[in-house]
Amino acid sequence: MDSTKSSGETAINITESKSSKGKAPATNYIATTKATPYQQQGGWKRGISIFDFILRICALVAALTATTTMGTTDQTLPFFTQFFQFQASYDDLPAFTFFVVANAIASGYLVLSLPFSIVCIVRPHAVGAKLLLLIFDTVMVGFTTAAAAAAAAIVYLAHNGNSNTNWFAICQQFTDFCQRVSGAVVASFIAAVIFIFLVVLSAEALRRH
Amino acid sequence: MDSTKSSGETAINITESKSSKGKAPATNYIATTKATPYQQQGGWKRGISIFDFILRICALVAALTATTTMGTTDQTLPFFTQFFQFQASYDDLPAFTFFVVANAIASGYLVLSLPFSIVCIVRPHAVGAKLLLLIFDTVMVGFTTAAAAAAAAIVYLAHNGNSNTNWFAICQQFTDFCQRVSGAVVASFIAAVIFIFLVVLSAEALRRH
Repeated sequence: MDSTKSSGETAINITESKSSKGKAPATNYIATTKATPYQQQGGWKRGISIFDFILRICALVAALTATTTMGTTDQTLPFFTQFFQFQASYDDLPAFTFFVVANAIASGYLVLSLPFSIVCIVRPHAVGAKLLLLIFDTVMVGFTTAAAAAAAAIVYLAHNGNSNTNWFAICQQFTDFCQRVSGAVVASFIAAVIFIFLVVLSAEALRRH
Repeated sequence: MDSTKSSGETAINITESKSSKGKAPATNYIATTKATPYQQQGGWKRGISIFDFILRICALVAALTATTTMGTTDQTLPFFTQFFQFQASYDDLPAFTFFVVANAIASGYLVLSLPFSIVCIVRPHAVGAKLLLLIFDTVMVGFTTAAAAAAAAIVYLAHNGNSNTNWFAICQQFTDFCQRVSGAVVASFIAAVIFIFLVVLSAEALRRH
């Protein structure tokens, strides 16, 4: 019974030092034994981190596509009257402006997060970086989803109009504008889904810690 | 050197069994010693779980408020013409219908998640339940934010209109309708923020595992 107690306490001490120092015990194991379960777990976590890095690049591509597609959309119709000049641009509608800003912030965050993701690959037991990425990823899920949903609500209105409020569909005239905007919304939703996967991956990596 | 190796390997075995079985080693520690670091961690995790439970109830209140406020909003103006009967209801606009459905789903999920949250309080080292809650909470961050953002885009339009697309503000007529809908949007955003906190709390609890 006494031996169980002492080994139990040793275990706790080492687990504690593992979570506080991170790298130090790992090198110790490499010096003494080959392929301990701790090392295997490290390899598995490294796999998760590499997948995390790839997903981050995919999300960056999606968010950048959404930003640039929406930001460069500008259609002027080839006819005009005395009172109207038929031109549609993303900054005519506040929801689209928010969309561009939110996706630009998400893109910027993704670029900044890449070095942290590399740290997680190099040091699979770095917990702080993972928790930080998880928190910001969760906020970005909210950001990109909000941008996509707000733009989607407006695009839906532009496509179909609404008879109850006398808001008329504008996509009969601005077909090219509506197509590009719809594409940007889809790209933003893809970015949001990738962010959700990133959160789940980080949580899984933290669980295995 | 040999003793370091053996204690290291014992530590790994115990850490492994801890993550795979969960409860079994904890009772062992209680039988032999009082207030080990493992137990202290258990108490700390229980505190997180109780806070998680309270936050879940707050989110449930917010989501239910959002659902019922939006779902019961129905305003008929006291005057009418031959062609129009001035009535505004949430199902006139698809974004508001989505809002009600998404917040109802979030409320239902929160009710179903309460037993899992209680399991986390009773068993602070139950990892599976925490990971499950974290994954669904992340999805719900997306759901509630999307609902709130889509409704907010439409409410903004109803308040201010848009001269570029000839969509007129309807809130001059439907003041009561617009006020209630704005309140529902705020409640949904509060629910989304609470969900973000829940994800971060679960991640922190998983990290301490």
